[in-house]
Amino acid sequence: MKTKVKTKHVYTFGKGKVEGDRSMRELLGGKGANLAEMSTIGLPVPAGFTISTEACQYYSTHNSEWPEDLADEIREGIKFIESDMKTGFGDSRNPLLLSVRSGAAVSMPGMMDTVLNLGLNDDTVEALAAKTSNTRFAYDCYRRLIDMFGGVVMNISHDKFEEVIEDVKNTRGVENDTDLTGEDLKSIVDRYKAVFQHETGIQFPDDPYEQLELAVNAVFDSWNSKRAVTYRRINHITGILGTGVNVQAMVYGNMGDDCATGVCFTRNPSTGENKLYGEFLINAQGEDVVAGIRTPEDISHLEQKMSDSYRELQLLGKKLEQHYGNMQDVEFTVQNNFLYILQTRSGQRTGKAAVKIATDMVEEGIITKRDAVLKHVNPDHLNQLLHPQIDKSGIKDEEIIGKGLPASPGAAVGKVVFNSEKAEEAARNDEPVILVRIETSPEDVGGMSAAEGILTSRGGMTSHAAVVARGWGKPCVAGCGDIIINYENQTFTNGRITIREGDWISIDGTLGTVLQGRKPVVKPELDDDYRTFMVWVDSFRDMKVRTNADTPEDALKALEFGAEGIGLCRTEHMFFGDERILAIRRMIFSNSVDERKKALDQLLPYQRQDFIDIFEVMNGLPVTVRLLDPPLHEFLPHEPDEIERVASELGIKTQVLFEKIRSLSEFNPMLGHRGCRLGITYPEITEMQTRAIIEAALTLKKKDLEVTPEIMIPLVGTPQEFRSQKLVVDQVAEKVFEEQDLRVAYKVGTMIEIPRAALVAEQIAKDAEFFSFGTNDLTQMTFGYSRDDAGKFLGEYLNQGILAQDPFQVLDVEGVGQLVSMATENGRKARADLKIGICGEHGGEPASVTFCYKQNMDYVSCSPYRVPVARLAAAEACLNEEKNN
Amino acid sequence: MKTKVKTKHVYTFGKGKVEGDRSMRELLGGKGANLAEMSTIGLPVPAGFTISTEACQYYSTHNSEWPEDLADEIREGIKFIESDMKTGFGDSRNPLLLSVRSGAAVSMPGMMDTVLNLGLNDDTVEALAAKTSNTRFAYDCYRRLIDMFGGVVMNISHDKFEEVIEDVKNTRGVENDTDLTGEDLKSIVDRYKAVFQHETGIQFPDDPYEQLELAVNAVFDSWNSKRAVTYRRINHITGILGTGVNVQAMVYGNMGDDCATGVCFTRNPSTGENKLYGEFLINAQGEDVVAGIRTPEDISHLEQKMSDSYRELQLLGKKLEQHYGNMQDVEFTVQNNFLYILQTRSGQRTGKAAVKIATDMVEEGIITKRDAVLKHVNPDHLNQLLHPQIDKSGIKDEEIIGKGLPASPGAAVGKVVFNSEKAEEAARNDEPVILVRIETSPEDVGGMSAAEGILTSRGGMTSHAAVVARGWGKPCVAGCGDIIINYENQTFTNGRITIREGDWISIDGTLGTVLQGRKPVVKPELDDDYRTFMVWVDSFRDMKVRTNADTPEDALKALEFGAEGIGLCRTEHMFFGDERILAIRRMIFSNSVDERKKALDQLLPYQRQDFIDIFEVMNGLPVTVRLLDPPLHEFLPHEPDEIERVASELGIKTQVLFEKIRSLSEFNPMLGHRGCRLGITYPEITEMQTRAIIEAALTLKKKDLEVTPEIMIPLVGTPQEFRSQKLVVDQVAEKVFEEQDLRVAYKVGTMIEIPRAALVAEQIAKDAEFFSFGTNDLTQMTFGYSRDDAGKFLGEYLNQGILAQDPFQVLDVEGVGQLVSMATENGRKARADLKIGICGEHGGEPASVTFCYKQNMDYVSCSPYRVPVARLAAAEACLNEEKNN
Repeated sequence: MKTKVKTKHVYTFGKGKVEGDRSMRELLGGKGANLAEMSTIGLPVPAGFTISTEACQYYSTHNSEWPEDLADEIREGIKFIESDMKTGFGDSRNPLLLSVRSGAAVSMPGMMDTVLNLGLNDDTVEALAAKTSNTRFAYDCYRRLIDMFGGVVMNISHDKFEEVIEDVKNTRGVENDTDLTGEDLKSIVDRYKAVFQHETGIQFPDDPYEQLELAVNAVFDSWNSKRAVTYRRINHITGILGTGVNVQAMVYGNMGDDCATGVCFTRNPSTGENKLYGEFLINAQGEDVVAGIRTPEDISHLEQKMSDSYRELQLLGKKLEQHYGNMQDVEFTVQNNFLYILQTRSGQRTGKAAVKIATDMVEEGIITKRDAVLKHVNPDHLNQLLHPQIDKSGIKDEEIIGKGLPASPGAAVGKVVFNSEKAEEAARNDEPVILVRIETSPEDVGGMSAAEGILTSRGGMTSHAAVVARGWGKPCVAGCGDIIINYENQTFTNGRITIREGDWISIDGTLGTVLQGRKPVVKPELDDDYRTFMVWVDSFRDMKVRTNADTPEDALKALEFGAEGIGLCRTEHMFFGDERILAIRRMIFSNSVDERKKALDQLLPYQRQDFIDIFEVMNGLPVTVRLLDPPLHEFLPHEPDEIERVASELGIKTQVLFEKIRSLSEFNPMLGHRGCRLGITYPEITEMQTRAIIEAALTLKKKDLEVTPEIMIPLVGTPQEFRSQKLVVDQVAEKVFEEQDLRVAYKVGTMIEIPRAALVAEQIAKDAEFFSFGTNDLTQMTFGYSRDDAGKFLGEYLNQGILAQDPFQVLDVEGVGQLVSMATENGRKARADLKIGICGEHGGEPASVTFCYKQNMDYVSCSPYRVPVARLAAAEACLNEEKNN
Repeated sequence: MKTKVKTKHVYTFGKGKVEGDRSMRELLGGKGANLAEMSTIGLPVPAGFTISTEACQYYSTHNSEWPEDLADEIREGIKFIESDMKTGFGDSRNPLLLSVRSGAAVSMPGMMDTVLNLGLNDDTVEALAAKTSNTRFAYDCYRRLIDMFGGVVMNISHDKFEEVIEDVKNTRGVENDTDLTGEDLKSIVDRYKAVFQHETGIQFPDDPYEQLELAVNAVFDSWNSKRAVTYRRINHITGILGTGVNVQAMVYGNMGDDCATGVCFTRNPSTGENKLYGEFLINAQGEDVVAGIRTPEDISHLEQKMSDSYRELQLLGKKLEQHYGNMQDVEFTVQNNFLYILQTRSGQRTGKAAVKIATDMVEEGIITKRDAVLKHVNPDHLNQLLHPQIDKSGIKDEEIIGKGLPASPGAAVGKVVFNSEKAEEAARNDEPVILVRIETSPEDVGGMSAAEGILTSRGGMTSHAAVVARGWGKPCVAGCGDIIINYENQTFTNGRITIREGDWISIDGTLGTVLQGRKPVVKPELDDDYRTFMVWVDSFRDMKVRTNADTPEDALKALEFGAEGIGLCRTEHMFFGDERILAIRRMIFSNSVDERKKALDQLLPYQRQDFIDIFEVMNGLPVTVRLLDPPLHEFLPHEPDEIERVASELGIKTQVLFEKIRSLSEFNPMLGHRGCRLGITYPEITEMQTRAIIEAALTLKKKDLEVTPEIMIPLVGTPQEFRSQKLVVDQVAEKVFEEQDLRVAYKVGTMIEIPRAALVAEQIAKDAEFFSFGTNDLTQMTFGYSRDDAGKFLGEYLNQGILAQDPFQVLDVEGVGQLVSMATENGRKARADLKIGICGEHGGEPASVTFCYKQNMDYVSCSPYRVPVARLAAAEACLNEEKNN
């Protein structure tokens, strides 16, 4: 015989009794577990209860019926709230009003929103009016209840209610909702009820219990809404019972002068100063603060006006900081001199504040250094510290021209120019400009360098503009689809605002926003707190951080930021000077190996000097030099007049140049004749570059600086490709050693950026001395996404939850990561001391850095301005790993 | 104490004694083992010996010294040859002359070529002149020896010798070498010796043993030539000791009227008739046959002229067929009434002959059916049978305009046109045309269909032109870089010949050649032998063969060729009719979901009818339908006047259309907004296509034809993508079932064509009911090769041995195959009955079919004309597997 065990469905929280805690997330949902936890640690939260996810599951599987005892348990729960709050549900003098919210163990779109003010009806609304001495407020609450309840519970379109308000405003000749009087709102409530009846065929329920029952069912139903089901199905979210339902007493800060409402931070979120920071209003509701009708007072004034509540708030603040080990952002309401905490969470803060709070709290003994690194300062904070920021206060919505991708952080202000020549001209005149292009190509590099910031209307996070700008730490907003650029008229427009050449704009590469006019900018400042903090960071870290740098300037910058070597020195950017590009174009037009060698000979002294300069700056730290990678057509001009000019420079017919450009053009340049495919078809290029690298190292050796160059063969997909190029490198190196009768050590390795390379990594590692994962290209090919074209669908993919993250920003562990793991493991099988790093854009992205750490990589490499972030991420990865062991 | 074991270095072959056999490949090299084998079975081969690869290894590792006894062993070997051939090495009356050839266990480029006539000097040349009664011949042999020996042994440039010949011809006032007299050649020999001395500082060695020693060393040295070493290094060829050296007696067919030389096949290689077929010349050397100075006689005449030798040749022919189980191609020389077999190998034959010989030999009991299928008929033979062929006889070199890729087999003859409209117009007038384009796009489909054949100057084996042409069995030469097309002048040229619109050309898609003028064409003919043979093929096969077919016509053709279902029915080609393309363009220009649905509604009846027709033809066999795959810009026009016309059809401004084309254009369309990315951003497309498929199946069910459509989601890279599209498919199907109150079974599966899909196959297979490997795209992305651009380096890769094969033709087992194996294995983990096939171009390529068989695939699918080839390949794979078990 089975004994029937009664299942509990309702869990209370409040002063009187707390039945849950934060470990019960699965049963109570995230929100429910959190409310229980707040009560448990003694916070004065308004009383309430959570209906369990098991009840929801029962409802879903039993034809929308409640479990046997649920109605009773809910009535018990209401009694508990009534006793805790000293009110009565439906009581016409002292009514308890409730909020109802959904909350599953995992947050997901498509679930029901909040219903507020549940319990109002024609009786209780008068009591609320009396207690708040505010008829207008009471009826506004009432009409909002009917609107919300009608919408989320009965599926009435919000427009139906809006029509009523518009009509009343027209009749009354007023423009804003706030101009409506209490009487207006009373009449609106009547008309809302009529709408409700017309749309549903039933009267708006005036029984509070009926309201509650319907609201609870609406939450249950929303669990199986089409959107929620699709979301769970696409993301294979299984094993979750259902959603919890949170029912909680409403409290009001506008019931008299012994009431108030406000928000405060336990420390100053801008500066980090250790002092309550916030604002409040006496006898007001939360919305009044937002609406801006009354000016809130500084939190310090609360001390005079409500000294008890102020003191309690101070004490609670300290208590919360101790409990959560972090600065808190607290919403509170004082109702008849009783302080309620409505919500507390870790407070948002600026980068400066984050670092100060972290170092202060370590000093105060609240947290450990480990916590400071792991929990207090995040990569965005460091980014803010490292880049100029637009002062967000005082920016009006209508000044925002558009929003694109936050391609390179920092703020820039300048006059708009649409081409490189103009940008360079302006730079010569010390005029700050923003270069605005549909997209950029290597030809634009001069102008990009001259501009304060870059704005493009096409391209993703790893487009040319984005990669180059990040490399330089120059602000960039990329792929801003909100604007249309017209080169002919030298304008761009978002349809509403048209910006002409010479107009001022400001761009925020941290947020991706484009603003009209000159906005004030806050300059970055690296103070002692930052330096202290970074020392802690490095003390926890055992993976190296290198940088991607192509010039001595970049290398120097990266060293200042703490880089421990160069992981990727691209050589193609070195070919874009005036003399150099001419030589490389001559090479492209060579008709024989000899001609080609002659053209390359002209490049040799430049390349050698480039390497000498970079090696010198790096002063013995490792430098990985990647041989020529881009397809040759990138070195040819594209615009008609440019073509004409270049043809005459080269002394060939325009038609011949044009034909060559056509013959070199590719359907999918990304998958074309580039990387080691160039070095194999034109070994002379590899020979010249190797000679330049080795000669540079020898030059420095003669000056007593020992350099071990790491020569990296790009775009390898087969062991044969690597071997063939390594052969060329070794032969040239040997020849140079003989010529100069002096040797240096050097390594030859490869990028792993083609899926096939990862698959045959064991074979490649037999000859290659190091691997560097080029995860930009590896992501492109593993997903089959062109980084320059994926913008057309990636947004929709993220929206629909098909992708959790943009794989060009955050390394895709499941797919691309599988190839990385495979290559790492198999590569080390063939060569135990194989040096392994990453030099794709992911090398500076915290989650990806964590993944690299788990692969036991020797280093990550990223653009100079991301080096501090990567150092932090590496330290965090290391600490998390320790924690898990 | 170690006993010294004497290592043997020289292995003789000939009448007297054979010391090797075909199992000794590693020690004797391939050529040496083969000569030994021929002697072993009693063939009268000229006597000789092979110096082992171990001797070569010793030489390489001992500072170019010979092993201790090698010189003695060689002298013994020479004695053996002398006794067998009854001649003397260096004998001034009856001299033995030798050939020296290299031969390693694996053939590789860069090794030494042959040296002939070794042993000639001022004495022996006179003996040769006397024995052949031909001074001219003897001195011609002598001067060739000096040239070859000078070149390969002493590294003298061939030009130095050529200069002498040119000078003599000028002085003598003759044009051809053949016009030189014996006296001329004597003087040339003298001058050659002077060149030799001038270039090397030593006299041409007249001691035959010295000649031999130097030649053997040259072979040894060539093993370590730069080219051979690079080749081995790139291809990681290790564990091979060195090369063997084959030293063999020369025999001459021009020593009198009891001498002859000739070649013959044991059966007719054109028709397969069981009768010796070939030709010979009395008192002549092999070169005379080639030079065309005398007309060779038919082999049947040998019976009268040398009845003994003829009878022996007949007997040997039968013996060889029995021994090798195949028709043989035999080179022979009769020297003083003694028949020597110089070489025997399986004979090349036409497709018709191959099938006849195979069926005849089974009948005659020489081979089994199994051998017939496994060894006698290869895919090329079947291709010849299935496609018209150009009659190669009488084609002059100067008529060959160019050579491209053999993109779709068969011959076509027609007048040149350069655009689709002209091709369609010509077709209406019954004029045969060849469509010549730089490359083709879906817009050209009409013209391609109208033309007899297609010629493109760009693009690879899986370019649009190649894929479409193969699908239709229409001859196509693709990527013919030898020609330059000028659309403006309506001409193309190879620099030598210029072809205008309207000129006749012939193309051979089997060989990839383009010919000037109208060439005679042999029509294909499938006879009883073919049918008998294919019955055997199918009896050995347990993997299904499906076809890739988009139209009922293709499907019908494929059924005739033995297809057992459709593995890939592309739906985009269905959108290219006049009405249809307008509707899809309307869809592209829709500004709302509703507008888009309206445009798609117009397409629905067409699509439904397409599927009804195809399902009807296939009569219940499985049909896999792929949902829309290409990027939308493929449906938009590209040429300016076309754009204008389409804009007016759509009732929009040209500028608007132009902007749309620009906004849809992509940097790397291959990796762009296509496949299920379209279906996810525009689910209406998936909905319409699903409806058309399901409604078509229901229509046929009402006519008592049960169809189980397989709906295939293209370009899936994540399980979420698949789930999201499957949801749409299932919902629409359910809706249609409800509407019609009738159900059919259907399956939903996916292409595996993105590397990531292969990596997460287990996840995908939880929801997908079948996988079909799209190895075209999978190869592109795994290698990072754009199939349309790879032509720029693939040739060089194949040349240098970096790739052994074009991975677009033969599936890359090591890389792409690894992903296929992984996906197959992991997919079946999640779903044991997962149906798996391949529908890339590799599905009709024999080596790739073998790989698919090893993966336990349920089927391969290929274009209709490759179905018989795939059936044969599947049978062979199956038989080979049996053999190995």
